[in-house]
Amino acid sequence: MVQKVLAGIDVGGTTVKMAFISEEGTIHDKWEITTNQKEDGRYIMQEAAASLKARQEKMNFKIVAAGVGAPGFIDVENGYIYEAVNVGWKSYALKEELEELLGVPVVVDNDANLAAGGEKWKGAGEGASNLLAVTLGTGVGGGIIAGGEIIHGQSGMAGEIGHIASIKEGGARCNCGKKGCLETVASATGIARLGLEAVQREQQGFLQSVLKENGAVTAKDVLDGAKKGDEVAGQVVNEAMEHLGFALANLSNSLNPDIIVLGGGVSRAGSFLLDKLRLEFKKYAIPKIAEDTKINIATLGNDAGVIGAAWIAKQTFIEKGA
Amino acid sequence: MVQKVLAGIDVGGTTVKMAFISEEGTIHDKWEITTNQKEDGRYIMQEAAASLKARQEKMNFKIVAAGVGAPGFIDVENGYIYEAVNVGWKSYALKEELEELLGVPVVVDNDANLAAGGEKWKGAGEGASNLLAVTLGTGVGGGIIAGGEIIHGQSGMAGEIGHIASIKEGGARCNCGKKGCLETVASATGIARLGLEAVQREQQGFLQSVLKENGAVTAKDVLDGAKKGDEVAGQVVNEAMEHLGFALANLSNSLNPDIIVLGGGVSRAGSFLLDKLRLEFKKYAIPKIAEDTKINIATLGNDAGVIGAAWIAKQTFIEKGA
Repeated sequence: MVQKVLAGIDVGGTTVKMAFISEEGTIHDKWEITTNQKEDGRYIMQEAAASLKARQEKMNFKIVAAGVGAPGFIDVENGYIYEAVNVGWKSYALKEELEELLGVPVVVDNDANLAAGGEKWKGAGEGASNLLAVTLGTGVGGGIIAGGEIIHGQSGMAGEIGHIASIKEGGARCNCGKKGCLETVASATGIARLGLEAVQREQQGFLQSVLKENGAVTAKDVLDGAKKGDEVAGQVVNEAMEHLGFALANLSNSLNPDIIVLGGGVSRAGSFLLDKLRLEFKKYAIPKIAEDTKINIATLGNDAGVIGAAWIAKQTFIEKGA
Repeated sequence: MVQKVLAGIDVGGTTVKMAFISEEGTIHDKWEITTNQKEDGRYIMQEAAASLKARQEKMNFKIVAAGVGAPGFIDVENGYIYEAVNVGWKSYALKEELEELLGVPVVVDNDANLAAGGEKWKGAGEGASNLLAVTLGTGVGGGIIAGGEIIHGQSGMAGEIGHIASIKEGGARCNCGKKGCLETVASATGIARLGLEAVQREQQGFLQSVLKENGAVTAKDVLDGAKKGDEVAGQVVNEAMEHLGFALANLSNSLNPDIIVLGGGVSRAGSFLLDKLRLEFKKYAIPKIAEDTKINIATLGNDAGVIGAAWIAKQTFIEKGA
């Protein structure tokens, strides 16, 4: 018998991740193909659709709806990509093309929003109606779910948690054009930069030996050093978590989420990081918010995107019947 | 012919404001009665219902649904008041009682949220789907609308913009139990306090003569002084707007609203205040957010609450057919 599934598609600069997911959120099959960046990415969705259709036939599935997570600046209502620098798209009617290719309804959203949706549906925030997802990677990404819905804002820019202002004067330059954004101090890049600055200033301890050996300091070095009790590394982690705690507490004071989910490479430091973050969070949160808001590490890893994409397809076409 | 109307009810510590409002948002009739605080406020809704029914008959209206804005801590889903200190209610099934009294469906929400809803429906934010409302009065209140819906959060505490942390170290004590909340520096009370501190420190100018004459400094004195070009008063207003701009920019970086609507007594300083706020906002907002986000003064004044109450009744019982 043919089994009905949702297709979850997560488009990144390197790979396109895909999965067949049941309405209950079980991954039946997942795989990925290389992102074909040729000619402004015009073959990406053709190749993804061909792969989905071949796999569907082989596995005896029937796709009923598809969700796509994409990076960049998106008109979610129309599934239209204004620009996605990482994959080469500009002014691209993604939803329209993929609906034609697959013959099923398609919904498109920002990849960070869908990662939040994935964690809400089947991850660390399972069942939460109000969730903040923060990804501490090369940058700081985010997604906000309130009242069970992704918050998009006026022009789809909502969730840009990484660009919350953290340092009022003299902060480092950010890619967004401002200075002192959260991203400049709490991303992997930011933590590495703070680590390098600290060891150049202090000239001692674990980070100094790392710097001598490798000629560079990574965020992982800083986190490993802090875990081992190195003082300089510990101060850097405290500083990063102070800024993150301040930003997340203030967002929580306004949005009252059930849970904050931390993902991305930096979050692999796990409970060591969470303990520090919770301490800073409590300093700045309204007492009841400080008490009630859970902060946990994301559990879905690289699957968050495809699961979130299936979730939004389910929510859009099955639950709301759009 | 009998005309169908929505009843908008705004319960405060001093008065209960009521209005009959059409589905299009036109106020056909509005009036208020004194809030009867006797016996933990148990007569308040009885008296309001009696007043509504008498007026309905006299004016030949027919109430089809009612919305109630109430202060305090509310279970919005069930229209249940955990506690509303200002009016005496504790563990009170407001929705249930009023539905019985009026014989129409009733929805209850926080008064600050409904003031935001009023401004969104018929005020400064007319037509906006994403709106932040901030009331600069004795305290700093707020309401957040995203994707056309009021954001409530996990336990109905969303929108507490006044308790965003503004001063990390050494801030003034706030009623919420924290120190350095936005409310301690940007409310009328906060501005008056900063004004008094400034004139005691500087001992000069307009505020000093006010202090000598009246033995006190009010927020209005500070704002009037700043408008006249008094240096000390000007610095206080700048300080308050710096904190407000920082908080609102960071919230906007995350929520991407169409518009921020400022209400409350302090906002009567009008464009003088807006100009200063916009300047600070731009410092901390993502460039595109800084460019796109409108900041305006609320236009509905004391009617925002009843209009918002009618709006939520319309949205709940007519548009969604709950």
